[in-house]
Amino acid sequence: MEKSIKVFAPASISNVGPGFDLMGFAINNLGDEIIVRPNSQKKLRITKITGDKKTLPLDINKNTATVGILSLLNYIKTETGFDIQINKKMGIGSGLGSSAASAVAAVFAINQYLELKLSKDELVKFAMVGEKAASGSFHADNVAPSMLGGFVLIRSYDPLDIIKIDYPKSFFCSIIYPQISIKTAEARKLISKNIALRKSLNQTGNAASLMIGLMNADYNLIGRSMVDEIAEPKRASLIPCYDRIRTNALISGAINCNISGSGPSLFSFTGSKKSASSICESMVLACEEKSIKSESYISKINSKGVIELS
Amino acid sequence: MEKSIKVFAPASISNVGPGFDLMGFAINNLGDEIIVRPNSQKKLRITKITGDKKTLPLDINKNTATVGILSLLNYIKTETGFDIQINKKMGIGSGLGSSAASAVAAVFAINQYLELKLSKDELVKFAMVGEKAASGSFHADNVAPSMLGGFVLIRSYDPLDIIKIDYPKSFFCSIIYPQISIKTAEARKLISKNIALRKSLNQTGNAASLMIGLMNADYNLIGRSMVDEIAEPKRASLIPCYDRIRTNALISGAINCNISGSGPSLFSFTGSKKSASSICESMVLACEEKSIKSESYISKINSKGVIELS
Repeated sequence: MEKSIKVFAPASISNVGPGFDLMGFAINNLGDEIIVRPNSQKKLRITKITGDKKTLPLDINKNTATVGILSLLNYIKTETGFDIQINKKMGIGSGLGSSAASAVAAVFAINQYLELKLSKDELVKFAMVGEKAASGSFHADNVAPSMLGGFVLIRSYDPLDIIKIDYPKSFFCSIIYPQISIKTAEARKLISKNIALRKSLNQTGNAASLMIGLMNADYNLIGRSMVDEIAEPKRASLIPCYDRIRTNALISGAINCNISGSGPSLFSFTGSKKSASSICESMVLACEEKSIKSESYISKINSKGVIELS
Repeated sequence: MEKSIKVFAPASISNVGPGFDLMGFAINNLGDEIIVRPNSQKKLRITKITGDKKTLPLDINKNTATVGILSLLNYIKTETGFDIQINKKMGIGSGLGSSAASAVAAVFAINQYLELKLSKDELVKFAMVGEKAASGSFHADNVAPSMLGGFVLIRSYDPLDIIKIDYPKSFFCSIIYPQISIKTAEARKLISKNIALRKSLNQTGNAASLMIGLMNADYNLIGRSMVDEIAEPKRASLIPCYDRIRTNALISGAINCNISGSGPSLFSFTGSKKSASSICESMVLACEEKSIKSESYISKINSKGVIELS
């Protein structure tokens, strides 16, 4: 039997307050597992998807995983055939970087299988092509953290310049995923193509100070900086329990509470697991009050990113 | 004879690439000296200004120094009379925070004279009122570094939130002041009130990564991050030797080269005094080629800000 490769790419939280399209971090446990096996037809095929409630396309030109792989195979001019199995271990449309995890896992698996030895930094752009199939736009704030792990800033898209930064190692992240549906592409349409200079300056000030807060482990500054004036004010209206979730989280000790990506998930940071649990409980309660089912998770920031499973 | 107080507030470089209205640092040698003496008329008076080529107003409601003082006196509800002497030790309209230095020195001198014991952070807002008299807008990216010293980020104006950050202690700054006239208020009118989201995101990415670069003493990252997409593209046209100055500076080893404030001065960072000298010479040459007189300065980042002189 020819060898197969199994990899796991983590879910991720993007935007992180003022970092719309620019910042994200990887989390633990949630993510996508992808198994790559060679096939004799010299064709790329998706043979099986689990955990997706039959919502993801098997068409290789539509699935983020295979769109990413095709981009990579085109770059290296290889036509080797692969059978791809995708085991989703996270919600789809959660705002936690589900499509990015698929694309990252797929691209990384091919890199490992063919021993291409491309660096993770180099692989990001192929995964971005994959993710564009789902989100409709070319962005890296989920793909980069899922690939690289840790907390990342995308300084520039042209040229692509991704920077990993230090963050408080004591950080716990509390995540609530209200079971409502938001399409990333729809959520992006809410964002104006032009913004007031004053808002832009506020966003820039907060993004810059968030970096300082994270690098200095200054919880208070991190909290003050986690304000989004561009995306979150528009997207909050799509989440009926948004205000209550935030209020409950803050009362329970969160240093702030923001939408993850385009939502509907929200997340908070805090400095202890106990506090993270209390915050999660309070956020679940906020959803229950609005009769919205939810799932909640506690995670440290995942420092590894995508990994090959033995 | 009643006591007098003499203080010195340093010049400063604002914007610093992507930090329009948000970032600045103080420099050495250039700045404003202010002497405060009590008078018996219970009135605030400007008795003398030196070094200004008779360009600054003696009217206490127009001069930045006394506008700042009046704002502070109004806050503490004191009517004590003072005679103010201003010794300008820097060019006016240079883009190096001349009006901010006046306002900072004046406000700080009164604080020292009356032993108000207001912190430098508290004094910033009174100096901002003073500077508005010259620039026409309420901003702190010169006032805050001149007051506090070091490299500062203004995270937020409402509420005012000023953060001091680490920077490479080996940094030298090369400054060129082409002897052309640019009015801050005029330069500000060039800036659009609305900007494209893409530009805003680029600015935010660069501002955030500049913080990382400064804190990690990562010269390459600092250089890549010192890009201004909002103010500098508009203001460069006001400085006839802009392109040549930048090119010469970069060839001579500058990690980047940007307009200081609203110009016409430009500045560069580098890691040694020798390199800073070469950069200065090359920038002076760029001005000479356009038959523009210039002054040049080399400075470390001034860590102290305003000080009382013995």
